[in-house]
Amino acid sequence: MINPFKIICKDKNSKARIGKLITSHGEVNTPIFMPVGTQATVKTLSPEELINIGVEIILCNAYHLTLRPGTEIIKEAGGLHEFMHWDSPILTDSGGYQIFSLSDLRKITDEGARFQSHIDGKEIFLTPEEAVNIQNDLGADIIMTLDECIQYPCDYNYAEIAMKRTCEWAKRCKNTHTDKRQLLLPVIQGGMHKDLRERCANELVEEGFSGYAIGGLSVGEDRSLMYEIAQHTLCFIPERRVRYLMGVGDPRDLLECIGLGIDMFDCVMPTRNARNGTTFTRGGKLVVRNAKYARSHEPIDAECGCYTCQNYSRAYIRHLFNTREILGLRLTSIHNLYFLMELIKDARKAISENRFLDFKKAFLKQYARKLVL
Amino acid sequence: MINPFKIICKDKNSKARIGKLITSHGEVNTPIFMPVGTQATVKTLSPEELINIGVEIILCNAYHLTLRPGTEIIKEAGGLHEFMHWDSPILTDSGGYQIFSLSDLRKITDEGARFQSHIDGKEIFLTPEEAVNIQNDLGADIIMTLDECIQYPCDYNYAEIAMKRTCEWAKRCKNTHTDKRQLLLPVIQGGMHKDLRERCANELVEEGFSGYAIGGLSVGEDRSLMYEIAQHTLCFIPERRVRYLMGVGDPRDLLECIGLGIDMFDCVMPTRNARNGTTFTRGGKLVVRNAKYARSHEPIDAECGCYTCQNYSRAYIRHLFNTREILGLRLTSIHNLYFLMELIKDARKAISENRFLDFKKAFLKQYARKLVL
Repeated sequence: MINPFKIICKDKNSKARIGKLITSHGEVNTPIFMPVGTQATVKTLSPEELINIGVEIILCNAYHLTLRPGTEIIKEAGGLHEFMHWDSPILTDSGGYQIFSLSDLRKITDEGARFQSHIDGKEIFLTPEEAVNIQNDLGADIIMTLDECIQYPCDYNYAEIAMKRTCEWAKRCKNTHTDKRQLLLPVIQGGMHKDLRERCANELVEEGFSGYAIGGLSVGEDRSLMYEIAQHTLCFIPERRVRYLMGVGDPRDLLECIGLGIDMFDCVMPTRNARNGTTFTRGGKLVVRNAKYARSHEPIDAECGCYTCQNYSRAYIRHLFNTREILGLRLTSIHNLYFLMELIKDARKAISENRFLDFKKAFLKQYARKLVL
Repeated sequence: MINPFKIICKDKNSKARIGKLITSHGEVNTPIFMPVGTQATVKTLSPEELINIGVEIILCNAYHLTLRPGTEIIKEAGGLHEFMHWDSPILTDSGGYQIFSLSDLRKITDEGARFQSHIDGKEIFLTPEEAVNIQNDLGADIIMTLDECIQYPCDYNYAEIAMKRTCEWAKRCKNTHTDKRQLLLPVIQGGMHKDLRERCANELVEEGFSGYAIGGLSVGEDRSLMYEIAQHTLCFIPERRVRYLMGVGDPRDLLECIGLGIDMFDCVMPTRNARNGTTFTRGGKLVVRNAKYARSHEPIDAECGCYTCQNYSRAYIRHLFNTREILGLRLTSIHNLYFLMELIKDARKAISENRFLDFKKAFLKQYARKLVL
C-alpha cells in the first residue's frame, strides 16, 4: 500500500511533526484542524469564506446526509463536493459517533447497528459494509470505518466487546472498500483501558490501513486522562502513518496533542461556541454577547488578522447577537475558525524551527492568564 | 439650495429617467433599489456581499436602532457607517412607518408620537425634532422627516388630519436639521385621496426640500390604485427633484413605477421572501424549499449570473432550508437582491436607449407566463 502521508519535519524536543497528506482533492498540510460541516455545510459559512480562513479540509457526517437529503440525491448531483460547492478535501464520518449519541434509539449487534432516525423515527440498519457503500456514494476523499463508540465511564467487559466489534467491523469495511481514490481510516477504541487500546491498535495495524484514527476520547473524561490515553495509543501506531484524534478542538488540547504526534483533528466546538457568542482570544475565551461589551468599540482580539477582527467591534457583534441577526453568527464563526487555523499554522512553524515546546508553553500561559476577560 | 440630483437621461416614451444622486458617501445611480438593513445589517449578508451584488445604498431604521443598541453607542462608534462597516450611502427612515405598525401601542398628537417600545414596553415620546436629532447622531447620508402613516382604508377626515400633521412635522424637521452633509427628505401622505396628496405635495414643495418621498402606499391597496396615486402625486413634485417611493420592491411594481418617474425604492420583501425560500426568476416566483425541487440539480434561474446561481443547485438550497442551515438563507438573499439590482440596471440601460416600455412589457410578459413554476 502506498503511504499517502509524508512527514516533512519532526520537532526535536517532542513527538510533534509536520507532514502532507495526499488526497484526491489535493494535499493537506498537517497538523490540521477540520471544521465540521455536518449537513454538507459548515454552519453559517460559505466555501469561499472557509478557504479565506485557511481551511484545507472539512468533515461531513455520512449519518446525517443519509437521512437528509439522502445518498441518492448527492450521488445524482455528482457527489458531495459538487453538491456543496467545495472543491478541497472532505472526510466523512461513518456514523458510529452519531449512533452512539442516540443511546435510547439504538441496538448494536455484531452484524451492525439498528437505530431510529432522529428526524422521523424510521428504523435503519447500518452494517459496516453499508457504511462504506454510503461513503463511496458520497465520494469523500477520506472515509471512516464503522465503529462502536462507548460511553464514559464504561466497564472493562463492555469496552472489550465494543473494541473487538470495532476491529471486526474495520476488517469488513476494508474488504468492502474498493474505490482507491478514497482513503479508508479505521478507528481505535477501547475506552480508558490502556490494554484494550493497545490490542485494538495492534490488531488494526496488523490489518494494515493508510492511517489511524483514535476515537472515544473527549467524551467527558479529564483532560489529563485524555492526553494519557492518546499518548499510550499512539505508541502502537507506526510513526510513518497519519494519525487522527477525533472530536478534539479546544486550543489547549490541540497543542498538547500535536505535541504527542497527532496530525488531524475535528470538532464542532469552535463553530458551536461561536454561535453561542463565545469566542477564542489569545487571552482566553471571550463571551462577546455579554452586556459588558455593549460599548466596547475594539475587535474581539486586537492581535487577530481575521475578517471579523479587521472590520467589526465587539459592540457591533454584541448588537447582532442581541437582535438575533445572522451576521453575528457568521462573524464569530469566521473568527473562531481563523483563530484555530492560525494557531495550527503557528504550531507548524514552531515545529519546523524546533521550538514547539516553547511555543506551546507561551500560548498556554497567555491563554490561561486572562480567562476572566 | 443646491440640487444633489442630476438627471442624466430621460426615456422618450415614458416618464422614466436615469440620474445621479450625490451624497456624502458617494454617488447613487438612479433608478435604485435600497435593500433594508433594519438593525444595521441587511439580514444574513455582509457589506462585501452587498457590494458584489451591486447594491449602492441601503436603508436602516432609526426607530429600531434607537431601541437597540441605542443612538449613543452608534454615535460613540463614529456613526452608523463605521459601526456596521458599510462605507457606501445609507438612508435612515425616521420611524414613522414603524410607529404606524405599533397600532395598539401608540398615541399620536400634534406634538409627536407617544408609543411603547416593542422590545421592553418602555414608553417613548418621539417628536419631529427628536427624529432629526437621532438621525443626525446616526449619521446617515439621507434622512427622513417624521410622518404619520395612516391605515388603509382610511376615511377622508382622518387622512386630512394626518396629512396636515405630516406637513407641519416636516417643517419642524427642516427647522431642526442643520447638518448639511445629510439630505433631508419629507414624506408625502394623504392616503388614497388625490386632493390630499396634491395639497400635501404642494405644501412640502413650497417649503422646499432636496427631494420628495411618497409614503403610505403599498399598504394593502390594489396594485392599480397604488400606481394611480403614485402617478397623481408625482404631478406635483418638480421633475428635477429626486423622487422616492417608500416600501415598494416587487419586480413588477419597480418597473411600473420607474415608468412613472420614480427614482428610489426600498422594501423588505425581497430579503424576507428569500428567508422563506421564495425566490425571483425571470419566469416568476419559485419556492425553492418545495419538495419538488429535491432532485433539481439546476440553479434557481439558469439565466442568472449571481453567486448562488453560478455555484449551487435548487436541490442543495432546498436541502439547506430543509435542515434549517443558515447558508440557505444567505444564498436566496443574495439571489433575490441580485435579481432586483440587475433588473434595475437593465431598466436603466433600456431608458438610455429609449426602449424602456418594450423592455418593461417583455419582462412582465415573461414574469407572468411561468408563475406556476
